[in-house]
Amino acid sequence: MSGHLAVIGLGPGDPRYLTAEAADALAEAQALYGYGLYLDRVPARAGQSRHPSDNREEAARAGEALRHAAQGGRVAVVSGGDPGVFAMAAAICEQIETGPAAWRALDVTVVPGITAMLAVAARIGAPLGHDFCALSLSDNLKPWPLIERRLDAAAEAGFVIALYNPVSHARPWQFGSAVERLRRHLPATTPVVFGRAVGRRDERVDITSLGAAGAALVDMATLVIVGTRETRVIARPGRPALVYTPRAAAEVSA
Amino acid sequence: MSGHLAVIGLGPGDPRYLTAEAADALAEAQALYGYGLYLDRVPARAGQSRHPSDNREEAARAGEALRHAAQGGRVAVVSGGDPGVFAMAAAICEQIETGPAAWRALDVTVVPGITAMLAVAARIGAPLGHDFCALSLSDNLKPWPLIERRLDAAAEAGFVIALYNPVSHARPWQFGSAVERLRRHLPATTPVVFGRAVGRRDERVDITSLGAAGAALVDMATLVIVGTRETRVIARPGRPALVYTPRAAAEVSA
Repeated sequence: MSGHLAVIGLGPGDPRYLTAEAADALAEAQALYGYGLYLDRVPARAGQSRHPSDNREEAARAGEALRHAAQGGRVAVVSGGDPGVFAMAAAICEQIETGPAAWRALDVTVVPGITAMLAVAARIGAPLGHDFCALSLSDNLKPWPLIERRLDAAAEAGFVIALYNPVSHARPWQFGSAVERLRRHLPATTPVVFGRAVGRRDERVDITSLGAAGAALVDMATLVIVGTRETRVIARPGRPALVYTPRAAAEVSA
Repeated sequence: MSGHLAVIGLGPGDPRYLTAEAADALAEAQALYGYGLYLDRVPARAGQSRHPSDNREEAARAGEALRHAAQGGRVAVVSGGDPGVFAMAAAICEQIETGPAAWRALDVTVVPGITAMLAVAARIGAPLGHDFCALSLSDNLKPWPLIERRLDAAAEAGFVIALYNPVSHARPWQFGSAVERLRRHLPATTPVVFGRAVGRRDERVDITSLGAAGAALVDMATLVIVGTRETRVIARPGRPALVYTPRAAAEVSA
């Protein structure tokens, strides 16, 4: 089986986040699959076919890309951020496990990328500076009570919490509900960072508190980082504030 | 104040993980600070001074770099992986908060990088495919009972767990103790991935189970990913197995 499938992380919106490995993998592909808005970030290349699809068609897209690769092609699926973080790598694995036996013989590589929480954290200081978790607020693929249980567990144990997919047109209330849940465990003064479209022209990074956080600050392109009791905000004259979580934790504080 | 400090993530060992932004930031620096083994990865450049230090001198290194930048220089501190994940960005923020007021006026940028858990996950499939956390097993800066509490919380709530700093010469028992703790919550069959020196010549990635996991498989350069009850291993004839955590979680299973 000579087919090859690469699952490539583009990082956040700007090409400056692309790794050398990802740039090479994009150059070598004969066919590119992906969500249309992600494919649009990849410059056109002669002889390379492009197969855009809608955002919520991960399983179908994964199947199409695997079928193409199984015909002997050199196929790439592109993901925003890192393909292994709430993105295409798991969808590809699911299809390989349940699909034709020939798909297990394919050469599959995953090329990591800068995931949104790392980009947002870098923009503001070091809010993930201690133990942290990444949690998707989408209840399309898991029940809301499980998300609440994870919010409880993470906040009680003192993890910084990066919230992916905080809201969408079809899921308008989830972020507000999550904030209310977190207020049971964390002080209203807990720093919260909203990073919208980081690396794009319309980038916006805001610092607020858990007490003031609300759905007005989030959209589909927003990554939210909720600090711990130790997370600190450093005011700087003439410069944006820095947010960081100290490396040391003196006691079980949550 | 014209001084500038960049905190740059080199990613795992291989230059192919470097982003375009990190490569540019390295090229622009007049002085490089960092742990000696990380600095050794950066090719020498004419006119650029190099200031290596030992691994455990983060606070002193941060202070030196800030003092240098405050003199008006263009200074860079390099980190392996991502500087915001158990690395130098938080140490820099700590020094800025407690140091001379002039340090708050410095232009500070953090350049994100591929952190070890993303590189290890990419090598093996998509083990972080669902909600996950990152937890350092070093009890140099936090008490061991807090680490146990976080292991309990993460395993009970069904997070995939990426373990950083599983062991060192001075901390030989922590990884074995963490595994025993996790066995209270997770089946012995839970997949565990050991990624050692990913991106370097001596890279080694092993898949085992929580029941079989032991300290013999880890050293200072190892990143461990402990799956959930849903994490799956796909055997592939003639190819390495894939490990992934499905995107969907049907119920509160832990």
